[in-house]
Amino acid sequence: MSNITMTKKVHNYSAGPCILPAEVMQKAAEACIEFNGSGLSLLEMSHRSSAFVDVMEKARALVKELLHVPAGYQVLFLQGGASLGFYLSAMNFMKKDGKGAYVNTGTWAAGAIKEAKKLGKVEVLASSEDKNFSYIPKGYTIPSDADYLHLTTNNTIFGTQFHDIPSCPIPLISDMSSDIFSKTIDVSKFDLIYAGAQKNMGPAGSTVYIVKEDALGKTGRDIPSMLDLPLQISKDSMYNTPPVFPIYVAMLNLEWLKDFGGVPAIQKRNEAKAALLYGEVDRNPLFKGVVATEDRSLMNPTFVLNDEALTARWDKMWKEAGISGIAGHRSVGGYRASMYNALPLESVQVLVNCMKELEKGA
Amino acid sequence: MSNITMTKKVHNYSAGPCILPAEVMQKAAEACIEFNGSGLSLLEMSHRSSAFVDVMEKARALVKELLHVPAGYQVLFLQGGASLGFYLSAMNFMKKDGKGAYVNTGTWAAGAIKEAKKLGKVEVLASSEDKNFSYIPKGYTIPSDADYLHLTTNNTIFGTQFHDIPSCPIPLISDMSSDIFSKTIDVSKFDLIYAGAQKNMGPAGSTVYIVKEDALGKTGRDIPSMLDLPLQISKDSMYNTPPVFPIYVAMLNLEWLKDFGGVPAIQKRNEAKAALLYGEVDRNPLFKGVVATEDRSLMNPTFVLNDEALTARWDKMWKEAGISGIAGHRSVGGYRASMYNALPLESVQVLVNCMKELEKGA
Repeated sequence: MSNITMTKKVHNYSAGPCILPAEVMQKAAEACIEFNGSGLSLLEMSHRSSAFVDVMEKARALVKELLHVPAGYQVLFLQGGASLGFYLSAMNFMKKDGKGAYVNTGTWAAGAIKEAKKLGKVEVLASSEDKNFSYIPKGYTIPSDADYLHLTTNNTIFGTQFHDIPSCPIPLISDMSSDIFSKTIDVSKFDLIYAGAQKNMGPAGSTVYIVKEDALGKTGRDIPSMLDLPLQISKDSMYNTPPVFPIYVAMLNLEWLKDFGGVPAIQKRNEAKAALLYGEVDRNPLFKGVVATEDRSLMNPTFVLNDEALTARWDKMWKEAGISGIAGHRSVGGYRASMYNALPLESVQVLVNCMKELEKGA
Repeated sequence: MSNITMTKKVHNYSAGPCILPAEVMQKAAEACIEFNGSGLSLLEMSHRSSAFVDVMEKARALVKELLHVPAGYQVLFLQGGASLGFYLSAMNFMKKDGKGAYVNTGTWAAGAIKEAKKLGKVEVLASSEDKNFSYIPKGYTIPSDADYLHLTTNNTIFGTQFHDIPSCPIPLISDMSSDIFSKTIDVSKFDLIYAGAQKNMGPAGSTVYIVKEDALGKTGRDIPSMLDLPLQISKDSMYNTPPVFPIYVAMLNLEWLKDFGGVPAIQKRNEAKAALLYGEVDRNPLFKGVVATEDRSLMNPTFVLNDEALTARWDKMWKEAGISGIAGHRSVGGYRASMYNALPLESVQVLVNCMKELEKGA
């Protein structure tokens, strides 16, 4: 198969599914034709074949290696996205007649709260809804009688991110869909981490769970098999047919990340990209950020034009520069430049150059 | 991208994920590199992009067209496979304090029964467990006070299939994972059909639901959002990020089926393949079928050697002929030649030739 030849150059700022490295796409394409000289496409291979079992095991091992997952934790590749994770996490951690504690930092945290309420009591410890989720609440007390605390570490829609994880006397669960693998984390602080793949891990269609094994099995609930983490662990993440191709592409992407230098190396680049863009947002009199400076997301910077009259000119300008996907989420408006792992610094420079150009012409 | 050039020719009898048409794999590979001249790989495109929304709508429309889905039904592409469907179907149809009726035809039916029991009462109307699931039970009475009857139309592991759907005075639910799109069905008989994609529909990673809309919303249950069919319908099958690539490949495969002449044309070929293989199983004194003749599956013929001493020679023979995937399921042994839609008649002829050759040499 020939190398990638795109018909045009796009700077892909999509909020997710999002940019993946070109070499990952190339290898993914090759596997659609034939996988490892087997005479079969990966799309038509049994998930019980040794070739795919190796893929699954390698993907699980790469998660452990890249995040320095401690002993006693298991890694699973399941389905359903974080939206199923909202329910699954409560199912596996909220005792019958128990309760879950939540911090409401926006749409996805609210989604997790909604699903947990279907199972039992929920205590919302803090919320930033009063200021349209433009900051991360701090200083709340974590109740010792809750079964767990649930956080959404990065808020894709609003552009906020937890930069400090509170110390937590009860089991800590986190939805890390949009910042997992973007910076180093101390997995030992968490009892459960879950993340839809379609940001920094791979294409849409798989969901990673990193779970402390001895935190499980304590709810007294009869859990549906597909949502039962101990059962999924006992089946090596293959209780049923897994999403073969999305897991393979996630594996390729994690290999790419390892070759890049791992999470510390990508964190350095992510910080450089964020510094470049936020620096321009703060410097350029035509723009302003919309969230508390100390809570700004490294993944999803959000900003607005100070003068909405410039909108048409600005939109034309960035589109002509080959930039795609920076319109803000339909629920908040403005702009959101999602800068996931695979986005090169060069693409951020193109965006910043556009902002400078708009200023010159204004 | 160049055409497919396999390193070797394989006759792919995998029980699922299974053979897909070569042209589907080719188009899938191309989409990994660039989708429709967008400058983006399909793997990095937003599911909210008009390009992908078109894919989703086309896939849903093709299901409707190919199966002649009547008005009043909705088609969804969800996640989790049939194993999540076991629970989801009971969640959406079993009233609080109600009950579900089941026919136990083997492993997958038993799985559906297990999940339904987590929600309420289950009545098993009939079972073929007494003869290791080698036939389809008939002549049972369907209780009018059950909320639904659940059937597994084809039993991949044992090789049996419902050739007549009982007339049913209560809502009828069917797991059609391994025979959907293989033969014409009368959708109007069913209130819910669900099927993991990885047999005749596409690669692993998506699950189709075909549901009669006015049969929903009657259980009084607070259903988890991801399992809530009315909610998924209201969001056009995109309550959250769908498995983009598996759905695209399913769409390609359904287009292939349409070009092939649709379900009646593929049924004709499937019947010819089954006649060829079962004919040889019945004729050749070295082999015998293991299920009731009238209940034989067109998709997963199972058979055994009469003389186990021939096993090593037989296994060497078919492997050398490029045949892959005919070892029986680990729970039953023997042989299973899964003959899904994309398997050409030629591959069946190769298998039959091997059987004849074994006979000559015996």
